[in-house]
Amino acid sequence: MTDVTLGIDIGGTNTVFGIVTEKGEIVFKESIPTNGMEPAEDLFERIFKNYDEVFKQYSSEYNLVGIGVGAPDGNYYKGSIENPPNLNWGYVNVKELVQRHHNLPTALTNDANAAAIGEMQFGAARGMKNFLEVTLGTGLGSGIVVDGKVLYGHDGFAGELGHVNAVRDGRRCGCGKKGCLETYASATGIIRTVAEMLANYRDNSSLRDIPYSKITAKKIFDAASSGDKIAINAFKYTGKILGEALADAVAILSPEAIVVFGGLAQAGDMILAPTKKHMELNLLNNYKGKIKLISSGLKEGDAAVLGSSALIWNELK
Amino acid sequence: MTDVTLGIDIGGTNTVFGIVTEKGEIVFKESIPTNGMEPAEDLFERIFKNYDEVFKQYSSEYNLVGIGVGAPDGNYYKGSIENPPNLNWGYVNVKELVQRHHNLPTALTNDANAAAIGEMQFGAARGMKNFLEVTLGTGLGSGIVVDGKVLYGHDGFAGELGHVNAVRDGRRCGCGKKGCLETYASATGIIRTVAEMLANYRDNSSLRDIPYSKITAKKIFDAASSGDKIAINAFKYTGKILGEALADAVAILSPEAIVVFGGLAQAGDMILAPTKKHMELNLLNNYKGKIKLISSGLKEGDAAVLGSSALIWNELK
Repeated sequence: MTDVTLGIDIGGTNTVFGIVTEKGEIVFKESIPTNGMEPAEDLFERIFKNYDEVFKQYSSEYNLVGIGVGAPDGNYYKGSIENPPNLNWGYVNVKELVQRHHNLPTALTNDANAAAIGEMQFGAARGMKNFLEVTLGTGLGSGIVVDGKVLYGHDGFAGELGHVNAVRDGRRCGCGKKGCLETYASATGIIRTVAEMLANYRDNSSLRDIPYSKITAKKIFDAASSGDKIAINAFKYTGKILGEALADAVAILSPEAIVVFGGLAQAGDMILAPTKKHMELNLLNNYKGKIKLISSGLKEGDAAVLGSSALIWNELK
Repeated sequence: MTDVTLGIDIGGTNTVFGIVTEKGEIVFKESIPTNGMEPAEDLFERIFKNYDEVFKQYSSEYNLVGIGVGAPDGNYYKGSIENPPNLNWGYVNVKELVQRHHNLPTALTNDANAAAIGEMQFGAARGMKNFLEVTLGTGLGSGIVVDGKVLYGHDGFAGELGHVNAVRDGRRCGCGKKGCLETYASATGIIRTVAEMLANYRDNSSLRDIPYSKITAKKIFDAASSGDKIAINAFKYTGKILGEALADAVAILSPEAIVVFGGLAQAGDMILAPTKKHMELNLLNNYKGKIKLISSGLKEGDAAVLGSSALIWNELK
């Protein structure tokens, strides 16, 4: 029998879950709609109904030893989710809901922290004990690993790098503040930058023919790849803002590496090169040239399940 | 016999050392010139000659169990100091130098980290496991405590909050960068702010009669206390910049409290009130009203010895 853990990643639209070995092999993985307007109980009923059915065929081979859950605003200390965005749940004690189905070691954290642990266990941060995981998706999330453990802080909400200030009195953020890093350095951030640049400059651009609501980070990347000046400069500006913020994070945390993950990170050097350049320009002398800025080693489609599974593997050690 | 540790704090001008019990009672304490132009060996010869003489009278009562050293740029991992400012030392292996005299458990860290450990052991952070110590002296130092341990990061230099960016392309910093937090929020920072305000505003001020080189944080405080508008606004501005930076640090670290220590902190509410106001304005909603901003519980004159002594007490546990 091989030990496995169940990793569950709760997203605003879909919830992905799967069975993962200690080496990071995904035995199986499923995706179901989250249905965030229904009570959380309903989601966990469906997850475990589905899981129990599928697992039957594996039960002679694999032995479930723990369950890890990644969710937006998941609180590690309390095992709960509080007022998650896009889910009509209020306060939910996830750990308890899970353990009603399987009374096994269970842990919960937010998606960025889960990605960081997944990276340490199975990805680009293997062997590292101090690093910063930055997820560039719709927003900007971050997971901080210090001495091999996620930095949760006093109340479990540490690592909100997306909400440090990047531009004083800058763009309005969903959190209610202005100028937060994620209003610049994220998929939605770069779309806002493109709109600003379309207004400020006179260059021709294919992006002038797409309504704001239809612009995506992927379309900006494609435009940049075919030489569109506005798109190229949008990536440069995004990298500048991100690099400056990362230099500050390095001064505070002294990580060995910064691992970048998520939709926008798939633009590769288009985003990483200007980020690296401006991070280096703003680093203290004793850090210059020493901080690795690297892409995630996790496949986009597998990362959510690997991260939440790694969370509980890490606890079981 | 009562166990005691020796705490040594190496400063640019003077070196203070003393014997401290586990409860934080200072049995004796001495101050000698650092003589930073002479080799480091010379300093440690003098420290231990002095110590050995004085300790004779206590040797029947107290038992030395460890030595802690705080020094600018002290590296915890290596036990060394590298190119300290104001000291003509180059690279010095402090741990080895100390252990030539007494072969006891020895630890070294920088002064801000030592202050943080002192605060946790003997001061305002007793019982806390996650907090941020900010020292407002000539510069701005910080010690970050996570889960009861100092955050050193990958190479031992974490906690350089003084060198996060406060104002993009702002004031030139001694580190070579521009706009670092400590060029605003420190004793020298507020002096620069006063000079700027004397230029920008037309208000009468007693500070107009003092040459730049003679202005001190204490004189600004005295002027502010007697109603000087420039001085009052200099404190407000300093607090604004500091409060904004602390809000970002909270988003990253999620501390229970921020403890403020050092010369400028002695201005009390004159600096803490605007700092608190602007920190609160910039905190994420889930932190608002929850982060304690408090003054150090360590006496200014004792803090250096208590901090370096606490460092080794903490190791011995």
